[in-house]
Parts: sequence; C-alpha cells; structure tokens
Amino acid sequence: MSLIFYGAPMSTATITEAVLNELGVPHERRMLEIGSNGTQSAEFLAVNPNGRVPALVHDGTALWESAAITLYLGETFGVERGLFPPPGAGRGRAMSWVVWSNVALAEAGGRLAAALPHGAQGNPGGMEAASVDAANSDAAGADAATGARLDIAGLLQVLEGGLGQSFLLGGYSLVDTHVSSIVGWLGMMGIGTEPYPAIAAWMGRCWSRPALARMMGQG
Amino acid sequence: MSLIFYGAPMSTATITEAVLNELGVPHERRMLEIGSNGTQSAEFLAVNPNGRVPALVHDGTALWESAAITLYLGETFGVERGLFPPPGAGRGRAMSWVVWSNVALAEAGGRLAAALPHGAQGNPGGMEAASVDAANSDAAGADAATGARLDIAGLLQVLEGGLGQSFLLGGYSLVDTHVSSIVGWLGMMGIGTEPYPAIAAWMGRCWSRPALARMMGQG
Repeated sequence: MSLIFYGAPMSTATITEAVLNELGVPHERRMLEIGSNGTQSAEFLAVNPNGRVPALVHDGTALWESAAITLYLGETFGVERGLFPPPGAGRGRAMSWVVWSNVALAEAGGRLAAALPHGAQGNPGGMEAASVDAANSDAAGADAATGARLDIAGLLQVLEGGLGQSFLLGGYSLVDTHVSSIVGWLGMMGIGTEPYPAIAAWMGRCWSRPALARMMGQG
Repeated sequence: MSLIFYGAPMSTATITEAVLNELGVPHERRMLEIGSNGTQSAEFLAVNPNGRVPALVHDGTALWESAAITLYLGETFGVERGLFPPPGAGRGRAMSWVVWSNVALAEAGGRLAAALPHGAQGNPGGMEAASVDAANSDAAGADAATGARLDIAGLLQVLEGGLGQSFLLGGYSLVDTHVSSIVGWLGMMGIGTEPYPAIAAWMGRCWSRPALARMMGQG
C-alpha cells in the first residue's frame, strides 16, 4: 500500500495531517512550498491541477479537497478502527458535517483571512478555495471582515446546537478531527469559543486526543 | 423507506433534484419559500439548522449540503444502479470532484451571483454557502465580479483538463449530474462553455440524459 500526503505548513492541509495522525496509517509526507517551486510546480499540478494542498495519492489515485480526503480516509481506513461510521445514517451525518465545515465554515473563514491584514491570517499557506486577493486595508476590507465574522458566528451557533452529545456523531470520530481543526484555525484568527460553551468543551475533548495533542506540541 | 426532499425553485436544490431524478428513487418533494414561512421556519430549521435548501430526510435522518447529499445518495442508491462507484479509487475521485464543485466552483459562482445586479443572478433562491449581501452596484462589486470570473475561468480549465474521457469517471455517474448542474447554473449567469470544448461536449452528453432532459423541459 502506498499513501503519499502533500501538505504545507500552516495551511488547511493541517486538517488532513490530523486525520492521518488519528488513523495512524503509515504514509509518506511531502511538505511543499506555496508557489512555483511547490504547489504550482508541474510535478504537483499533475497530482492536483488546482495547485492546492492538501492532496493525497493512494495507490496511484490522486485525491484533493480536504473534505473529500477525510471522507475517503474515513471510508477506507476509519471504519475498521472505529473512527468513522459504516454506510447508513451515521455516515450521512458524517458527510453533512464534514462538507458543511468546508463549504460554509471554512468559506467564511477564508473570507475573514482575506480581509485581515497580512500576518493576522494564521493562514499564509492559503485556504483551498477562498480567493485571498481581496482588498485588505480599506473600507471594503473592513466590511468584508465584519460580514465574515457575522457569518462565522451564525455557523458556530449551528455547530453549538449540533453538540448535544460528547462528539458530533456521539462517540469520537474523524468528523470531530476535521471540524475541530477548522475551529482551531478560526481561533488563530481571533475567533474564540467563549460564546459557545458546548464548542469550548468539545474542543477540549478533541484536543486531548493523543494524536492531536502531539500535533499541538502538548503531549 | 421514507425519503423527503426539501427544495426551492431556482436554488442549488436543483442539483439534488437532478440526482434524485437520475436515480429514479421514490421520494416526497417539499418545495419551500426562502424566508420566514419556509427555509427559516421552525419546522424546517429542525431539519436543517442552517435554514438552507437542499435538505433530505431519509428514514428520519436529516442531511444537508448538496455535495454531502449527492455522495450519500450515490452510496445508498447509486452503486446498485451503476450510477456511482463502489468504495475504492473511483469512489475517491467521485468525492474529489463533487466536493471540489461546491467548495471551489460554486463558491466562486456564489461570489459572482452576489456581485451581479439583482435579476441577473439566476439564483434568487440563494446559494447554500455564499454570502449574498455584498455591494451590488459599486466599484467594489465590479471588482468582486471580475475576481469571481477569473477564478471561475481557472476552475473551468481544471474541469476541462479532467474531461479526457466521455464523463468525469469514464462512464456516466452522479458526479456528472452534480457537476453539470453547477456548470449549468454558471451558464445562467452568462458563463458560457465556448472556451472549453471538452466541457461543452460533455454538457451536451449530460443534458441528453432522459432525467435531465425532462427537467430542462426538452424531453
């Protein structure tokens, strides 16, 4: 079995790295620079024509988009490890939360990152999908940041409401790994979890997992 | 078996409707208004706390996000009908394209819709994730539209490059249903396929499917 992970420091590839660490699946790790020598190189564009990390090559098949990669790794390696639900209702809820966290939560986070002054983004690696060339310092940028913050607040309220159990599907799963990584990235941009007690407690539970704690340098 | 589809006219729920029509799975269809009597009603917020369509309830389990719904319907009903790959390499590529089409292509489309004058959006139902309250008529709006068009052009080039076969996975699948629905929505906003011969030919093949042709009122 061959599994190659392509990432970059401080990028959304961190989500995939957390999922791989949680699974404990042996893999080769290739960290790229953002730009012509790395993510825009001909070699990498043959893996992901979007020129973005994360990307994964499993036995010759290239996969991109962190949500797709989490769902694929969950289906392929997670079920037997008790970290991902088998097909059925739980699988459907896993798909909804993982896709939602990228399409909605990370999308709003990407808009906030684009609107923040450089250096405050916590995201120099670049989000997968967000266009980060928006005006950063003018009134439009301030409006964009305000709009993004409002959207994030609404979305975190949805997440808060979904945490009626210890974890999103009941017991811990890769869905928690994935979504908590995105909430952690929002935290790096100053979006705290104080207004959301269920999220705050859940983040503590997620980050006490040995695999995540090691990544955070806490264990 | 109980399957309830929640949609709204001229919204991204059209993607899910196309997938359901292609599958031919019996389902109940509930079309909602956008707003307090429909997508923001307490009844619907209990189904999707995001207050957005599409949503699906399958045997009591609520699903949201059109990409998640397509992947779920594919896994649950599509494999046996030859419309979705079983687990493995093909499944991984299906996940990548479907997630990409929402996270990247529809995200850029949502930005274009938000930047266009009202009435030219082809999307009064509202995209699932995009914030559509951006300035519509000033210089910032024009810049946003230009940026969105550039991003869409780059993404359509990626799709063009992925169409080395008749369909995205080789034979026709729900991945084509899903992605072609988004390309069709872009077309309603004036993004034509003329610069992309492989996409143009593929769209013709997709829309000649009986289920899609019926939806388009052509069959």
